[in-house]
Amino acid sequence: MTIKSRAAVAFAAGEPLQIVEVDVAPPQKGEVLVRIVASGVCHTDAFTLSGDDPEGVFPAILGHEGGGIVEAVGEGVTSLSVGDHVIPLYTAECRECKFCKSGKTNLCQAVRATQGKGLMPDGTTRFSYKGQPIYHYMGTSTFSEYTVVPEISLAKIPKDAPLEKVCLLGCGVTTGIGAVLNTAKVTAGSTVAVFGLGGIGLAAIIGATMAKAARIIAVDINPDKFAKARELGATDYINPNDYDKPIQDVIVELTDGGVDYSFECVGNVKLMRAALECCHKGWGESTIIGVAGAGQEISTRPFQLVTGRVWRGSAFGGVRGRTELPAYVDKAQKGEIPLDTFITHTLPLEEINQAFALMHAGKSIRTVIHF
Amino acid sequence: MTIKSRAAVAFAAGEPLQIVEVDVAPPQKGEVLVRIVASGVCHTDAFTLSGDDPEGVFPAILGHEGGGIVEAVGEGVTSLSVGDHVIPLYTAECRECKFCKSGKTNLCQAVRATQGKGLMPDGTTRFSYKGQPIYHYMGTSTFSEYTVVPEISLAKIPKDAPLEKVCLLGCGVTTGIGAVLNTAKVTAGSTVAVFGLGGIGLAAIIGATMAKAARIIAVDINPDKFAKARELGATDYINPNDYDKPIQDVIVELTDGGVDYSFECVGNVKLMRAALECCHKGWGESTIIGVAGAGQEISTRPFQLVTGRVWRGSAFGGVRGRTELPAYVDKAQKGEIPLDTFITHTLPLEEINQAFALMHAGKSIRTVIHF
Repeated sequence: MTIKSRAAVAFAAGEPLQIVEVDVAPPQKGEVLVRIVASGVCHTDAFTLSGDDPEGVFPAILGHEGGGIVEAVGEGVTSLSVGDHVIPLYTAECRECKFCKSGKTNLCQAVRATQGKGLMPDGTTRFSYKGQPIYHYMGTSTFSEYTVVPEISLAKIPKDAPLEKVCLLGCGVTTGIGAVLNTAKVTAGSTVAVFGLGGIGLAAIIGATMAKAARIIAVDINPDKFAKARELGATDYINPNDYDKPIQDVIVELTDGGVDYSFECVGNVKLMRAALECCHKGWGESTIIGVAGAGQEISTRPFQLVTGRVWRGSAFGGVRGRTELPAYVDKAQKGEIPLDTFITHTLPLEEINQAFALMHAGKSIRTVIHF
Repeated sequence: MTIKSRAAVAFAAGEPLQIVEVDVAPPQKGEVLVRIVASGVCHTDAFTLSGDDPEGVFPAILGHEGGGIVEAVGEGVTSLSVGDHVIPLYTAECRECKFCKSGKTNLCQAVRATQGKGLMPDGTTRFSYKGQPIYHYMGTSTFSEYTVVPEISLAKIPKDAPLEKVCLLGCGVTTGIGAVLNTAKVTAGSTVAVFGLGGIGLAAIIGATMAKAARIIAVDINPDKFAKARELGATDYINPNDYDKPIQDVIVELTDGGVDYSFECVGNVKLMRAALECCHKGWGESTIIGVAGAGQEISTRPFQLVTGRVWRGSAFGGVRGRTELPAYVDKAQKGEIPLDTFITHTLPLEEINQAFALMHAGKSIRTVIHF
């Protein structure tokens, strides 16, 4: 039975979201209807809304950092029941595709093709408004009171975890921590540089602290962000604007040759280069986490790699959502992942455009939308 | 006592080498006088001779792929004695610097600064001609009957190994095999692409065979090179000129998603990009071995890395020369590294310019100079 749902709809690129009542069709085979309790607002939502995302389709319901409760399940759904608490995953985990079976990556491709087009795996949408289809987004569409998600794109979590906080583990926080622990595998005693102190960068600092890095260098052009970085474990703070030479040279000097690991958490291709080149000759590894604009390219002299640096990237922190996310929730419950640090604002769905404004003004880390 | 030595001197960039009798000063503290028995001629020698090498200084004695016998030792030399057979190392192994002690890299920096300037560690040269100093090259200068090399830049090898063959382990062959085994750590059953079938590329194929790769794709625009690749274990042969689409797309299709490991063995930055982009999403790793021209840069979309590909590089195959090269010599002695396959020509020192001509014409893999 089709139900009504309050939702923030992106009718067109570059326009404010509109709060309307959409129709949500029932979950089909392998699908789950989820009542969203809370959702973070992430830079990627803003990126797509801006129109710069080549995969962006409109009208759509954005949002990919949510927490919710299973309201109904479609045919064949076995791993979830009504009442289960879940975090929707924009990176599914089918456990059956070549990627899942490889044991080498979290990039399950089971629903990738349709998800990238804003559709459910059967090639249709569950959302409509006044009879016109509304597209899904990242397979999650958490800016809707009710959303439909494939079973393989839902991580089941304990019911005592506060959804209005652990929703942040659906993207940024897990991405930053996972990039450090899963992708780069930072070792105890190492030196780490984190470029960009937004949500992902701060999460990377938490990850580096969890990995027992000896020195954590926080880099941002906004020095107001250093206090929070310090609170989470950063030991050094660098504002590139304070120097008249390339920031990679500054860091190489500061660290007697470069860092063991660096993380780019902004999505700026020049910063990605700096992050690579501040790595130590012989062994330094740089991980790209930020998402660059369409068509932008990274570059460096190959000598940087031939002399032992390694360039890699990370998506959703290399985390297999259904398998590994419950442990992240557990760590958050124990206080090892201080989610409160990230939540600078909470707003009702009706004021969601304010969340984008706060983000664009650099005034928020995360605004959590309460439904 | 200064001795006389026949040598091929590069008096100026772009000019043929001149065979003259140079003066060689005795080995100083920590240095060793080596009588070179044979030396391969490598593309890097030609690169420097061309004048394109920013570190190239003239006049100099080139050559870095040699085998020889210790003729005299300087003060404090303890690991080598007169009569020992040695392979000079352009990458030293002091076992005391930060790099050696890290256990993570073979890029010993003990003599790097002076070596890059064509000087011995004390900042002077041992070669002169008519009273004018002649510079060293890569710390080895194997195009001279007698050369002086730091003790830490000599790998001691068994006396029964034929120097006129194992000299090739001083550069290209070890570089290719080591990149596969030490740097990329290719696993059994994997799919490998090797770009460029010169000496290093063929050695990479040997390495992939040793690693028990299931599929080894040889890529070259000269199909005459496929026979030797096949002989060494390649299973597929691709000539990019046979296709009207990017070679990375051809390989991704051929391999159902891309290769597990790729190696760029040419020094062409466009090929480096292709080698990365033909890697499998989620886990494919590309290793740059070739040396690009001065100032040239590699580039790609960061999405290539964020979706799980890894970009790395390798110098001298990640091999610690003094520690690991004897095992390579042993493998060659046992026939596991078929050095004869690489030696297409032998010439006396007096005809060394012919070796460069053969190389430029693409007619040789390696010419070995016999003294």
